[in-house]
Amino acid sequence: MSRAEFEFIERLKATSRTQTAPHPNVRLGIGDDAAVLHPMPGNDWISTVDVLVEGVHFHPETSWELVGRKALAVNLSDVAAMAAEPVAAFIGLVLPQQRPVADVDALYRGLQSLAETFGVTLAGGDTNTWAGPLVLSVTLLGSVAAGRAVLRSGAVSGDWLFVSGPLGGSLESGRHLTFTPRVDLARELANSYALHALLDISDGLASDLWHLTNSSGVGAVIDAASIPVHQDVSATLPAVERLQRALTDGEDFELLFAVSPESGQALLERGSLHGTTPVRIGTCTSDPAVKLFSEGKEEPFPVGGWCHQFGQPNRLRV
Amino acid sequence: MSRAEFEFIERLKATSRTQTAPHPNVRLGIGDDAAVLHPMPGNDWISTVDVLVEGVHFHPETSWELVGRKALAVNLSDVAAMAAEPVAAFIGLVLPQQRPVADVDALYRGLQSLAETFGVTLAGGDTNTWAGPLVLSVTLLGSVAAGRAVLRSGAVSGDWLFVSGPLGGSLESGRHLTFTPRVDLARELANSYALHALLDISDGLASDLWHLTNSSGVGAVIDAASIPVHQDVSATLPAVERLQRALTDGEDFELLFAVSPESGQALLERGSLHGTTPVRIGTCTSDPAVKLFSEGKEEPFPVGGWCHQFGQPNRLRV
Repeated sequence: MSRAEFEFIERLKATSRTQTAPHPNVRLGIGDDAAVLHPMPGNDWISTVDVLVEGVHFHPETSWELVGRKALAVNLSDVAAMAAEPVAAFIGLVLPQQRPVADVDALYRGLQSLAETFGVTLAGGDTNTWAGPLVLSVTLLGSVAAGRAVLRSGAVSGDWLFVSGPLGGSLESGRHLTFTPRVDLARELANSYALHALLDISDGLASDLWHLTNSSGVGAVIDAASIPVHQDVSATLPAVERLQRALTDGEDFELLFAVSPESGQALLERGSLHGTTPVRIGTCTSDPAVKLFSEGKEEPFPVGGWCHQFGQPNRLRV
Repeated sequence: MSRAEFEFIERLKATSRTQTAPHPNVRLGIGDDAAVLHPMPGNDWISTVDVLVEGVHFHPETSWELVGRKALAVNLSDVAAMAAEPVAAFIGLVLPQQRPVADVDALYRGLQSLAETFGVTLAGGDTNTWAGPLVLSVTLLGSVAAGRAVLRSGAVSGDWLFVSGPLGGSLESGRHLTFTPRVDLARELANSYALHALLDISDGLASDLWHLTNSSGVGAVIDAASIPVHQDVSATLPAVERLQRALTDGEDFELLFAVSPESGQALLERGSLHGTTPVRIGTCTSDPAVKLFSEGKEEPFPVGGWCHQFGQPNRLRV
């Protein structure tokens, strides 16, 4: 164990001891060979991992507090996408040598602060140092009533399709570092509405819609004019380019979901929900084609293939 | 999602579909936002993460099949160290760009082959590419009867201390790439013996013994002549240097454990167990000091401080 690892783990341990409310499903956190967790009787666990890499998912000059925050936030978004409750996070770190300890503290603050907001216990990790740039891997475990995780594959013909908020411009604006994972919204959708299929938009709606329709064995008609374009996308761009940005920029971390028409109507009447307003963008069809309805006519929706037509998504590559 | 990620995930999905026996606790593997797992009723989950970094945990010229194998093996060793059954692994990858796809296949083969040996389902992952070297993060979930995970902290005065096999020379010989995680041994120890404390030796006995005694609030007397030095440590070295190597080389991934004297006696009579022969190295004491009994006299055991006296453990740093 390196000194950096030792210090980081000691800091995690100290904080988990003083944490006001460690998650009740965590029996044993940091300090042994592994964490021990016990779910609510009958509950399922869900598990997801995301790796963040300097120069790909964040700029080298991004504050490590925001980097730590994002590393947990993208995993929280995956837990939201299963309509589960986040429980415990495991942090794998590869730290650049000679980086000031203040940066490591900031990284930890970013993780810890968001963890507290969502009631997540930092329950384990592995820390290494090397001559290369920062790499973080976060694994997040969540809990959900047995058989009640909401998959991508449950949409049926006639379902209404919603996104949980406006899309596009996330990387450019820095929103990808500060977004709110839609954990609370997803759980309310699952508890109070006929929620059939759910995922989070990480690669862009053009890619992620395909995951939903393809898994569910449905098609869709999407109304171009209804797709909410985020204000982070410049208003001076031509409309077609703004739409393209909303479809392909990615890293939105909004939810894409399918509900029954009755639930869809109820959602529209409800309006704002957990700090955002879900927007209906289309309808699932039995015809497996996915179509874009735009200016009075239907055309094939460039599902999944949009990137190839218009170039790679706007990833950071520095 | 990059093409590399897409292809890797498609390969994982295809294999998990054809896997002869996916673990029954895995309800849903790769393909949604997260995996869904359900433990045996009443069981606890244990969770551990290890990150492997090119140039630190393996040489750049190491075959990726062995790298994949090691990434899972070190986590299996952590699951063994809790006396749990491994269930599901989650693979976070950062792949060097332009690396031949044959290498990625080899990495996957190394993971998959060991996963099959231990009944582990590869249930999720995240794959990225960059201009840097290879980084792998593996999270492994295991299952154990509720409250029956074996911690580091349960040793009591009078317990006998064992290691599961010879120590030292692991990195130099390449054994760290091919070792057998002591999963089956640990479960038998937990099921059939009065096993009080357990961990795996990753940093070297000098460090890891401290974890056991310190967590348990005991001391120990260790018999220097009983510490089994691996044949990978050159026989031509002076005895004191061979001992030092056994204590500090690290990456042995043998178990260190404390059992009641009765169980210890039974183990000695049993001899070979799951392909190895546990060796008694000492006894836990109520005196919190840890002592090394060597050539007829007791001296302070350089627990945890050995590295500082004799230099850093023999890590790869290239």
